[in-house]
Parts: sequence; structure tokens; C-alpha cells
Amino acid sequence: MRPPQTVAVLGAGSWGTTFAKIAADSGDSRGVQVRVWARRPEAAEEINATRRNSRYLGDIQLPANLQATDDVAEALNGAQLVVLAVPAQTLRAQLREFKSLVPKDAIILSLMKGLEVGTDARMSQVIAEELEWPQDRIAVLSGPNLAMEIAREEPTASVVACSSIETAGWIASACTTPYFRPYTNTDVIGTEIGGIVKNVIALAVGICEGKQMGDNTKASVMTRGLAETTRLAVALGGKSETLFGLSGMGDLIATCSSSLSRNHTAGRLLAQGLTLDEVTGKMQQTAEGIKSAQAVLDRAIQLGVYMPITENVVAVLQGVISVDELGPRLLARELKAEGVHAP
Amino acid sequence: MRPPQTVAVLGAGSWGTTFAKIAADSGDSRGVQVRVWARRPEAAEEINATRRNSRYLGDIQLPANLQATDDVAEALNGAQLVVLAVPAQTLRAQLREFKSLVPKDAIILSLMKGLEVGTDARMSQVIAEELEWPQDRIAVLSGPNLAMEIAREEPTASVVACSSIETAGWIASACTTPYFRPYTNTDVIGTEIGGIVKNVIALAVGICEGKQMGDNTKASVMTRGLAETTRLAVALGGKSETLFGLSGMGDLIATCSSSLSRNHTAGRLLAQGLTLDEVTGKMQQTAEGIKSAQAVLDRAIQLGVYMPITENVVAVLQGVISVDELGPRLLARELKAEGVHAP
Repeated sequence: MRPPQTVAVLGAGSWGTTFAKIAADSGDSRGVQVRVWARRPEAAEEINATRRNSRYLGDIQLPANLQATDDVAEALNGAQLVVLAVPAQTLRAQLREFKSLVPKDAIILSLMKGLEVGTDARMSQVIAEELEWPQDRIAVLSGPNLAMEIAREEPTASVVACSSIETAGWIASACTTPYFRPYTNTDVIGTEIGGIVKNVIALAVGICEGKQMGDNTKASVMTRGLAETTRLAVALGGKSETLFGLSGMGDLIATCSSSLSRNHTAGRLLAQGLTLDEVTGKMQQTAEGIKSAQAVLDRAIQLGVYMPITENVVAVLQGVISVDELGPRLLARELKAEGVHAP
Repeated sequence: MRPPQTVAVLGAGSWGTTFAKIAADSGDSRGVQVRVWARRPEAAEEINATRRNSRYLGDIQLPANLQATDDVAEALNGAQLVVLAVPAQTLRAQLREFKSLVPKDAIILSLMKGLEVGTDARMSQVIAEELEWPQDRIAVLSGPNLAMEIAREEPTASVVACSSIETAGWIASACTTPYFRPYTNTDVIGTEIGGIVKNVIALAVGICEGKQMGDNTKASVMTRGLAETTRLAVALGGKSETLFGLSGMGDLIATCSSSLSRNHTAGRLLAQGLTLDEVTGKMQQTAEGIKSAQAVLDRAIQLGVYMPITENVVAVLQGVISVDELGPRLLARELKAEGVHAP
């Protein structure tokens, strides 16, 4: 199957725009056209007029074969690969609106990391339900992928997961550049869960950092955080090895290490004493962990999976415990269990 | 079995002295005496006179039930727990010298992280050989344990591993404090290998950092580094779950994240263009990864284990490739493999 000639990216935030640049750079020599849909007309205009998306990517220069539009029908027209990068909690409503515009033979790639509040559904599940699309044409992409570093063309790797390894390989061929190397697997569940729960763990690590806890503590929280993420993924049908790879451990470490990470930043702001509303108001983009944490915990409870870090982060977000109480709780309760399968 | 009343710690570097403080604090209410052997008489004098080990721990105040001596016979006399914290490459020679002084019923705990150059032996193996000691009375301790943070009493956890879980538990009871929580397991091999190879991976991450590579890249190197560490540990008879716990992933992340880590620092200095001799000369304490890297690679080659990060770090240390060549090699070769069991 020849790689796509026309790629639509829905969502012009930092990751959507960066992925559009990857796809445009990857396909430039093959005459590939990438069209980004931006909700705000002025964002589309800026991209087309100045080759920049200054709100999210500063002065990064976007390639010439990347065009933006605020007309979703124009973006989707004839697209062979449709990339979804909208906020996780608005996905279902947007898919209902766009459904008739999605080309029937398109392959769908989700860049989104979140569980839908209310249904606790993964993004690939929402896509399958709303578009009535087959599993083997829905893929997800996840990895240690801080958007700004990739936009600067600092080399990194990533994972494309799809039940069909051929589909995953086809997508990988459409987004391989000298600075971006996608690998493939068939574990959609493990790949998605890694990307979702790491945002919750990053909130915990951000709070630890804001409370001036040391690298020993943060490393322990990441380690125990990956263990509880793995327990959830396995309970849902994912594979533990996925969680120990780039889309699990790699993404978690990158997110928890970087001052560029929104969830990590949100945790630091919470630790400084800001309320949840103040944190949300202060941030330009969604800290998805704040929205997904409760849904992750709901899933864990349904499945009888022990997720003490998630549980305590939810308690902080709900105001049940203070940020000062979180650190001691993470160490006192949760560190008792050594090993992925331990309670 | 009652916890030990007398603990000897051989080695008054940062980790030996910090562990002595932990044991002293842990046993203070039980009248425990901790005796630290320092090679340099002036170090022993400073500890006894000022309660400080300023060379390694700044102005950290040491407890009153911790005494130092430069006489190893005095340190070992009547000790029920003998803790070894000498440089990995001098251990064998020192054990030969001290052998007759070690109380016959003592339990031995290794804090050391390295493979012996020449024999490629783990520290617990060197101890068993030289002291002719049974496995069930030799234990190792490892975890996300940057000494300076623990000396400041910032809470952390650790792992005590011994073939006898009773021995591990007995040691844990002798070093539990509000700021230090040891857990136990029986996987000595996995625990030791995690502590050894992380120093090699930390050199690679330090070089990446010195070359201004981003968090995505560093997270990828840590992830792939833990995968190759796990492959080696499993080939030697260790358990993969140990590597995904605090003494594997936890220790690796703490070491690779912290400016306090010697191996990480050594990597940064190498990246700045210093020669190996200059780096060694500049550092007050041994960067054990520099010495163990070749031994780790030897073991990997003997066992047919694929360890591309270690291989490339050794090539840098031997001057076969430059630090500038390392980054692209890590990404180009090594990231191809996703998964612990991949080639």
C-alpha cells in the first residue's frame, strides 16, 4: 500500500501542529500535502501567512506543504490518513459533527491521551464507536514525545500501535523523518493506557517537585507509578512489555522530567498552593491528567486494580487531602508494594 | 533473631557514612553502636571530633552512637552486621587483608555497585569467594538512594536482597528509619545487576545531557538502557520484575536525573570534551560506571546478550568513537529494538 498523499490533522495545538510538520517533512519528496484544521480562523491564517503557530510553537518554521484551514470539510476532503489531535473530552462531540466528512477508506490515527469522563472510554474506543470504524483502521501514536523538542527537530522515537501491523507500518512510513522514528506494535490498549496514566503520575511527580522533594522520591513515584499503570493495562488486556517500552516508561520519564510538560507543571502549581481552578485558568493548554484521573480510578476500581498514586492524586484534585498530605501518603502506603503484580 | 547491637561499616565515603548514619539512627533507641572504618586517619578523627564527614557530606551532623576509627580490627570487633562500602575494584584485596578479623557469625551487607575488572564478578560473589561465606549470610542493598538526599533525611525507599528472606528482613530491621524504608527480596543477581549497569547508562545519559540533547532522547536512552540491563540480569539468572522495581528502574531514574550522581556528572564532563584521565582527576569519588562498563560488556558478550548502549559507552571510554558520535548511534542502532526480549 503506497503511503498517503493527503493527510488531514484535526487540531492545531502544539502536538497536532508538530505532528503535521512531521508528516509534511516525511512526505515532502513524495509531494504529500498536509492540511491542518484549526478551530480558530486566526490560527489557520497565521500558519498559512507566516508558516508559524506562534501560540504553541513560538518561532518554529512550518514546511510549505503544510496548509491550515478553519473549514473541517476542506481539511478532510480526500484525506487518506486522518489524524485526531483535539482535546480528549471534546472528541466524541466533534466526531459526531465531522462523521459524514471523513473519507470512507481513511485510516484514523489518534494522538490524544485521555479517558473520556463519564464513559471511561479510551480515545480509540470513542473513535470506533462514533465513526463506526473497524479496529484495523484505527491506530494510536505515543512515546517520549515532548512536542516542542520535536518541533525543534531534536531526534526522538515513538510507537504506532494498531491491531493490524500493516496499518501501523503504513502510518509509520508516513511519519518517518531524520528527527522522528516511529516503531510499531499491535498493543493498542497498552500503548493508550501508558499515555493516559502517565499524565496522572506526572501530576504526582510535579506536586513532589513543587514540595521540594528529592530525586530519590520522584524516582520512586515514577517507578511505583509505572507499576500501577502496568497493572491497569494488563487488567484491560494490554501487555506489560508495552509499558516497559518507549510508549510506557519512555513517555513517563520524559513527561515527569520536563518543565515543558503541562501535567508536570500543573502539579507544581498545585504544590504551590493554587486551587484547581487557578491552575486550569493559568495554563494555556489542557493538563489532561486533571480530567482523566477520576476516569482512570473508576476503571481501576471496576477491575479491582490497586492504584494508590492515582487514588491519592484524585483525592488532591477533589480537595479531600491537601498537597502537603500527598508526599507522606505516597511513601507510607504505596511503597510497601515492590513489583508490578503486588497489591 | 534480635537486630544487631554492633554494626561495622567499612568505608567512609558518602554512601558508607550515610548508611552508618541510617543504622545508627535506626538503632539509637536500642543502644546500637555503629563503627565506621575510614582509610584516612584524619577522616576518622573529624567524624569523632566534629560529628561531620565534611569531604563527602558537607555539614551533615552524624549521630552520637556512630564512631569512626582507622583501625579495621577495632571496627570489626564483635560486629554482628558488617557493611562493605569500599571501592568495587579494591574489594578483593581488602577482604584478603581483613578476612581473619571478620566475626565468624557476622552477616555481610554489600553497598557496592560494580563488577570486578578481570573476573567480571559481582560484589556478592567476591565476598563469598574471599571470605568463604555462605550465600544466606551475604546481602546487597540497592535503590533510588542518592546519598546526599538521604543524609538530609529526605524520605526514600530501598531494597535489601538475600537468598535468605530472613536475613534480608533482619538487615531491614537494622536500617529502618522514618526517612529510609528498606524492602526485601531474594533476587540478589537482579538487584546487583540493576545497580551496576545503571552507572553505565548514567554515563550515556550524562553525555546526552552534556551534548544538549532533550528530555525525549534521555528518556529513550533510559528506557532502552533498562531493557538491556534486564536482558543481562535475566541471562545471569535474575528476575525481570526486580529490574522494574525500585532497585532497577527507580535507581536508574534517580541516578540519571540527579546532578548529585557521579556517573551522570562524569558523562557530562566527557561530553564537554574532557579526556577520561581529566574526568577521573577532576572527580573526588570514583565514577564506578567508568570502571565497570568493560566488565559489563564482557559478560554480555559471553552470554550473547545485546547491549548496544553499553557497547557504545565502552567505545567512547576507549576512545574508539567520539562523544559526538554517541548520540546518533544510540538513536540509529539501538532504538530499533522495542521490548526487553528484542535483539
